[in-house]
Amino acid sequence: MTHIGFIGLGIMGSRMAANLIDAGHTLTVHNRTAGKAAPLLEHGAQWAETPAGVAQGAEIVFTMLAHPQAVEGMLGFLPALPDNTLWVDCSTTNPSFARRMAAEASANGHRFIDAPVAGSKKQAAAGELVFICGGAQADIDEARPLFEAMGSRVAHVGEAGMGVSMKVVVNFLLASSMAAFAEGVALGQALGIPREALLRTIIGGPVAAPYLSGKQPKFESGDYSAEFPLKWMHKDLHMVAETAYEAGVPMPAAALTEQLFRAALQAGLGDEDFSAYFKHVTG
Amino acid sequence: MTHIGFIGLGIMGSRMAANLIDAGHTLTVHNRTAGKAAPLLEHGAQWAETPAGVAQGAEIVFTMLAHPQAVEGMLGFLPALPDNTLWVDCSTTNPSFARRMAAEASANGHRFIDAPVAGSKKQAAAGELVFICGGAQADIDEARPLFEAMGSRVAHVGEAGMGVSMKVVVNFLLASSMAAFAEGVALGQALGIPREALLRTIIGGPVAAPYLSGKQPKFESGDYSAEFPLKWMHKDLHMVAETAYEAGVPMPAAALTEQLFRAALQAGLGDEDFSAYFKHVTG
Amino acid sequence: MTHIGFIGLGIMGSRMAANLIDAGHTLTVHNRTAGKAAPLLEHGAQWAETPAGVAQGAEIVFTMLAHPQAVEGMLGFLPALPDNTLWVDCSTTNPSFARRMAAEASANGHRFIDAPVAGSKKQAAAGELVFICGGAQADIDEARPLFEAMGSRVAHVGEAGMGVSMKVVVNFLLASSMAAFAEGVALGQALGIPREALLRTIIGGPVAAPYLSGKQPKFESGDYSAEFPLKWMHKDLHMVAETAYEAGVPMPAAALTEQLFRAALQAGLGDEDFSAYFKHVTG
Amino acid sequence: MTHIGFIGLGIMGSRMAANLIDAGHTLTVHNRTAGKAAPLLEHGAQWAETPAGVAQGAEIVFTMLAHPQAVEGMLGFLPALPDNTLWVDCSTTNPSFARRMAAEASANGHRFIDAPVAGSKKQAAAGELVFICGGAQADIDEARPLFEAMGSRVAHVGEAGMGVSMKVVVNFLLASSMAAFAEGVALGQALGIPREALLRTIIGGPVAAPYLSGKQPKFESGDYSAEFPLKWMHKDLHMVAETAYEAGVPMPAAALTEQLFRAALQAGLGDEDFSAYFKHVTG
Repeated sequence: MTHIGFIGLGIMGSRMAANLIDAGHTLTVHNRTAGKAAPLLEHGAQWAETPAGVAQGAEIVFTMLAHPQAVEGMLGFLPALPDNTLWVDCSTTNPSFARRMAAEASANGHRFIDAPVAGSKKQAAAGELVFICGGAQADIDEARPLFEAMGSRVAHVGEAGMGVSMKVVVNFLLASSMAAFAEGVALGQALGIPREALLRTIIGGPVAAPYLSGKQPKFESGDYSAEFPLKWMHKDLHMVAETAYEAGVPMPAAALTEQLFRAALQAGLGDEDFSAYFKHVTG
Repeated sequence: MTHIGFIGLGIMGSRMAANLIDAGHTLTVHNRTAGKAAPLLEHGAQWAETPAGVAQGAEIVFTMLAHPQAVEGMLGFLPALPDNTLWVDCSTTNPSFARRMAAEASANGHRFIDAPVAGSKKQAAAGELVFICGGAQADIDEARPLFEAMGSRVAHVGEAGMGVSMKVVVNFLLASSMAAFAEGVALGQALGIPREALLRTIIGGPVAAPYLSGKQPKFESGDYSAEFPLKWMHKDLHMVAETAYEAGVPMPAAALTEQLFRAALQAGLGDEDFSAYFKHVTG
Repeated sequence: MTHIGFIGLGIMGSRMAANLIDAGHTLTVHNRTAGKAAPLLEHGAQWAETPAGVAQGAEIVFTMLAHPQAVEGMLGFLPALPDNTLWVDCSTTNPSFARRMAAEASANGHRFIDAPVAGSKKQAAAGELVFICGGAQADIDEARPLFEAMGSRVAHVGEAGMGVSMKVVVNFLLASSMAAFAEGVALGQALGIPREALLRTIIGGPVAAPYLSGKQPKFESGDYSAEFPLKWMHKDLHMVAETAYEAGVPMPAAALTEQLFRAALQAGLGDEDFSAYFKHVTG
Repeated sequence: MTHIGFIGLGIMGSRMAANLIDAGHTLTVHNRTAGKAAPLLEHGAQWAETPAGVAQGAEIVFTMLAHPQAVEGMLGFLPALPDNTLWVDCSTTNPSFARRMAAEASANGHRFIDAPVAGSKKQAAAGELVFICGGAQADIDEARPLFEAMGSRVAHVGEAGMGVSMKVVVNFLLASSMAAFAEGVALGQALGIPREALLRTIIGGPVAAPYLSGKQPKFESGDYSAEFPLKWMHKDLHMVAETAYEAGVPMPAAALTEQLFRAALQAGLGDEDFSAYFKHVTG
């Protein structure tokens, strides 16, 4: 049993925190909007008025926030932590930011893992997230039992900063396979192939990303309730572009994908699931 | 047991024909270059000097040729066929061509299926091709036992012409997922993630097309011996572009993918496997 | 004074033919739709019922048709020409077609220039076209007085076929500068710069293609009556793509431009001037 | 005669400052690297050890720096300025930064114009720059005599921030016309048109940006000594991408152009003139 500090109780964080409690750990939590913490407090978590309050007596701290600025706004917890504590940032930030956070942690005498997740609301609730981790092996081993309470798999890809680096790559592949799939179906339809035959033949086959089968009900029903909103995918694609610029890597397919999703955003689909890109293209 | 005419004995056709013989059927075969027929003739096939010679007494005819012009060059068999025979064209042609072939067949009193295959040399040898078929249900049922001798799955996607329409879509998805994968790995490497960790995390996961795991030995060994040469993938991508133009469907991702593969072709990779695009991008 | 055969009396051809008559030459003309010839006949031209009729006694033949197939449909004039006559094809065709026409001419004992024009309806009427010519120097010199009756400049760029090769390049530059201009204005507007200031600062300046100033009244009035319809620009962009494929030259910017214009076509702008792409992008 | 503070004495700033002195004004100058100021000090300028030193008694301040961070590093001059002084930032920054600088100036009781320039080393030396200005009309009128000492034209495009907004648009048009030009020439060459004929026909014609004629000697000689280095063009293209992201405007052509220039950067052309992109593509 570990005493855990947890900051960030949105769609993802609240479900992850609940799974930690269910696994028998004690949690002190904080969130920018206090009201969102209510269900967790009933579930047994303790409330802290400030990020620093979360740090008191914590053996480990998790943060799960929407973007780098939000992480930066919570950094008050760092100086308040017991010496040499492990901070696990599950937020999807960008590589240069994560390296900076690792340095901040170190400057305060602590250790850092960036551990963004693959999976959305459903996987968070079911404890089936994949944690894509950058950091020292020993630190990842220390956090592993907690990762396992929240997820089904831990991928250790390198040192601090490389978790989000890999996440950035993964999100680009997610978006670009959606973009290609939608174009392919649009062409098939224009050639007279029924959409049903296109979905049946492509999805689950060797050339389609397996995650597409989880989106198939949306393609069929036209109900694109957000699991991962298109506006966040667009933001992540821009992070890919930023990262590629910093790294000096030409990424023409990624650059185009960002523009295509921006057109869908401009068409008003930002709050729907990112798979609504499909309807944007195929009608 | 069926008496089959088979025209086109290249890498794919020779293996498909051998599987038909192994399944107990008799074959009369023809090929532009007679020499390539030798192994099959030893295996029990009969040689015809002309396409028309293949037609004599055939209950069904298969063609497996490299491009539309090659199919057109073999059409001499059509007038020589017994009345109302089924012609199955397994060549990867383009939709408007396939519709024209269906009309040619009909004008000669015959029936037509376009049945391009998914899979390459290895699947052809193992009898594990997927036939993507356009044509009448009854005709596909008639050919089904033969498809099953050569493949593992028959996908019926619509009327004549729609098999190659679907194939065109599938090949685009194949190429575009390779292009995105290569860009993603290039970025990951530039960020310091070891290539091995990138392959391990991406391939087999939810965002990568499953066929990539079959290419993993190539990525690891650097040996890109052709299963499906890059120059043919480039040609197929151009067919996608042609088809999209005729259909009036904007396909920005497909258009970009064609250009990216053309750069790889220009760099001298045309005769290697199309997955050599990976080394072109990731170094 | 020359006796000229002229085939193709559309928007461009009829104006070009009229200028030849005005310069004192005699014309025998033919057009697929006979009715369109009426004004020219009143203006002094003689009608021929067939392409071959145009050839009788011609000292030189001009063709000005909409596409390669239309040129092919008129080839009946070739065998009927007096020996060693010069044929000037002003149609915008593609390089491989033009080289084939050169060979056809030669096989019939004649000479060939491809001389597509830069300029549209207004320049045709005013005799201000630019002729972009491929062919032998002596042949171009022979045609020069007639070019000068119809245009203001003759650019000799190489041997037969290179006129349309250059035209293909020029049309791509035309379209791509329109596409970039529209994107730039869209961004400027979103940043709050008044459209009027954008047009004033960009058009006529060092970074904007000079032809844009001729389109400025359209941008300002919103009246995009066709000088050069968007659907033809889209067709020409596809010809660029075809030509680049045949030549093995990667042209990512050209490939994207074709897709962007196709989206405008799909949005219903095909019959408006190609500069209507501007309103498609900037609202 | 005005007493002017001038910060930033690089390739551009040193030449602009010299022209101000030549026009009879007195200058106090500062530069991060003091050594670069030497020629100007001999020319009559006075040195200040700090940005704040420049502010003493200044009637107007010009800054000409390489990027936003450099501008930020010099802000020490703002609090030291006499009340209600005009600050003219000629640096090419980005719109959101320029708006922030306008707010900083205002918070210190001063006025702000963003006035990035069109033109490079040669135009700076000759006093032929174009100033693209955002700000209040009265402020631009106040600076006009000084602009005229350094340049040939003042374009007032809107309020503060819109000068760099327009500059961002202009630089995108600059790069995209270079990219299209290079692709067009590459195609023309592959079709057999001599490069010389391509340059002669395209440059100076209606479809080519007029600035290309200034680059023609580079295309002909192969000497791409930097006037505006490719690495800075790449940086500016990224600023376009950033700005388009913030503004929510899809810019597929701009996004592609950035990637194309990045490939040239990766190929080692960063320190050559941005027109070296031409040789990267045409060989």
